[in-house]
Amino acid sequence: MLGIIVFHGSTRKDSNTAYLTYRAVPKSEATHIHLRDYQVHPIVDERHSEQGFKPIDDDHKILIDQLLAHDTVVFSTPIYWYGMAGPLKQFIDRWSQIMRDPDYQHFREEMKKKKVYAIIVGGDSPEIKGLPLIQQFQYICQFFGMTFAGYLIGKASKPGEMKNHEEALAKAAFLLKRE
Amino acid sequence: MLGIIVFHGSTRKDSNTAYLTYRAVPKSEATHIHLRDYQVHPIVDERHSEQGFKPIDDDHKILIDQLLAHDTVVFSTPIYWYGMAGPLKQFIDRWSQIMRDPDYQHFREEMKKKKVYAIIVGGDSPEIKGLPLIQQFQYICQFFGMTFAGYLIGKASKPGEMKNHEEALAKAAFLLKRE
Amino acid sequence: MLGIIVFHGSTRKDSNTAYLTYRAVPKSEATHIHLRDYQVHPIVDERHSEQGFKPIDDDHKILIDQLLAHDTVVFSTPIYWYGMAGPLKQFIDRWSQIMRDPDYQHFREEMKKKKVYAIIVGGDSPEIKGLPLIQQFQYICQFFGMTFAGYLIGKASKPGEMKNHEEALAKAAFLLKRE
Amino acid sequence: MLGIIVFHGSTRKDSNTAYLTYRAVPKSEATHIHLRDYQVHPIVDERHSEQGFKPIDDDHKILIDQLLAHDTVVFSTPIYWYGMAGPLKQFIDRWSQIMRDPDYQHFREEMKKKKVYAIIVGGDSPEIKGLPLIQQFQYICQFFGMTFAGYLIGKASKPGEMKNHEEALAKAAFLLKRE
Repeated sequence: MLGIIVFHGSTRKDSNTAYLTYRAVPKSEATHIHLRDYQVHPIVDERHSEQGFKPIDDDHKILIDQLLAHDTVVFSTPIYWYGMAGPLKQFIDRWSQIMRDPDYQHFREEMKKKKVYAIIVGGDSPEIKGLPLIQQFQYICQFFGMTFAGYLIGKASKPGEMKNHEEALAKAAFLLKRE
Repeated sequence: MLGIIVFHGSTRKDSNTAYLTYRAVPKSEATHIHLRDYQVHPIVDERHSEQGFKPIDDDHKILIDQLLAHDTVVFSTPIYWYGMAGPLKQFIDRWSQIMRDPDYQHFREEMKKKKVYAIIVGGDSPEIKGLPLIQQFQYICQFFGMTFAGYLIGKASKPGEMKNHEEALAKAAFLLKRE
Repeated sequence: MLGIIVFHGSTRKDSNTAYLTYRAVPKSEATHIHLRDYQVHPIVDERHSEQGFKPIDDDHKILIDQLLAHDTVVFSTPIYWYGMAGPLKQFIDRWSQIMRDPDYQHFREEMKKKKVYAIIVGGDSPEIKGLPLIQQFQYICQFFGMTFAGYLIGKASKPGEMKNHEEALAKAAFLLKRE
Repeated sequence: MLGIIVFHGSTRKDSNTAYLTYRAVPKSEATHIHLRDYQVHPIVDERHSEQGFKPIDDDHKILIDQLLAHDTVVFSTPIYWYGMAGPLKQFIDRWSQIMRDPDYQHFREEMKKKKVYAIIVGGDSPEIKGLPLIQQFQYICQFFGMTFAGYLIGKASKPGEMKNHEEALAKAAFLLKRE
């Protein structure tokens, strides 16, 4: 086990979300994956079609292998329309396919051992309007029996704004060093 | 104004979600859009880049024009990992781009007049674990000042299962005829 | 086991909440307890005081015995300030004391077997603003491992108003006859 | 305007909730009201009875006058069964009566100007299972148009435990000094 992996959902480089996330999990202390750098096709629900899911030629399994190789998982995402960003949701949606892949029969059992954190950043009252997203992460964790060990909600809209948010940055320092 | 438009988020044909949705909004009574039949690229957040959003060559504006042409909007989606399905989220995410498009300066003002319903269907305790998604729709409506006039939560996993769900089907009949 | 018990939290006789509740659970089909007719003192948290909880001379244990004697429990309450009504909350709060009462060592184990329903009625967008209360019931059920089998949200403000709410009344008929 | 008022809902002296709250709002910087020291009768809903609410001889109006005399209001409460503690709920429930009291016709208008904070402490995953309570506070604020300026969730069960929770205490220091 390699320790911490961070999945960054932001579509923008040097985003506020990334800034806050690096304060919570410095570059040197984790494997950082920027999902926008990988190709992941959206799920097509073929759970019930005769042949099952068709194999898809993209980077999803590379990401899954990375996920499985770490024991602590941080999901970092800007809040888009009160939900997670597309690249992160697309990555997660495809887990439904992985769970039916003969090569990943251990997926569910392995996931159960993970410790999960979420970092979300939004501009419109994220501490309130981001709560459904936090609950969504909680249900995802519950599905696998993963431990949802903590979350961090940051507020920012304009580029660079996060730098001045002392409170969020102070909280970031605590996220993974929980009591 | 053309009355009711339904945006179907399911990636599967003849899904349980579609079955329930047609019971709430019969084919003949609304414009039904199956988002899987349209190409919509995921948003890339360029709100803050110098040139703004790059024009994107896909079907998004066709969908937006349809949306604007109706006064009642029904979002129908299976619950994927406790959130909405990709095609629907992708459609909504791109509204951020529309709001900065000079051709759609009336978008926000027009949206304010809409009456919105949501129909969501899931297999894992959707009446509880679907509530964050309902709250997400509520915040989306609140953003524009749209009226969130009602929602319907159905439970189903296997194909065809919805047909037997008397309760959900009975509720469906009431959805748009609210007191 | 005596079947269904309903705990009514309304402080008003012939309330809209009661009307809806009787449509979901007719008088003849359940034990109906109107909490306003019983004296229940508020909890004083003495879990950590040396002598533990002091015995309290009120009707709480009568209610607990009734609760334990049934296998299906319906909590019915008007929504007061987006939470449950006082008499119901007071009844539930005192469970913390029961759980430390040597006479009720079986309480937790017995509760686990219950099937729970909630009926809530409010005037201010209850289908949205009542959801935190539904989630609260869910967490209460989860604490004991009880099955939260369903809920019903009614909208009404003025006395007698519920009578005209066809939709809520139709849903009521389904509440305990779930698929 | 006298600045900050804190309403403490805990029924126990020297509670973890109080400890955390005093770190967020030191004794000398606010009016601290321990609701357990005041007598407040539960609401009886007589909004629709002919004579309206009967006058009640208790301390409620003393508390309301204090509330109105401050511009920042902090609600501090242990989490009891995933909701607020009885003394605080009882205090809030009676606002329904105040709103129909001819002596308090300015209540609603005055409340609109308040800035509200919530501090909640629980033992069972409060950062997740306390969220419905946070949403409840949000809806209460929304009702009056008050600003819900922030909240703090602490975790503690045993007496004195809060002292060691560096993270919560660090966050407390930020609560009222928000960016």
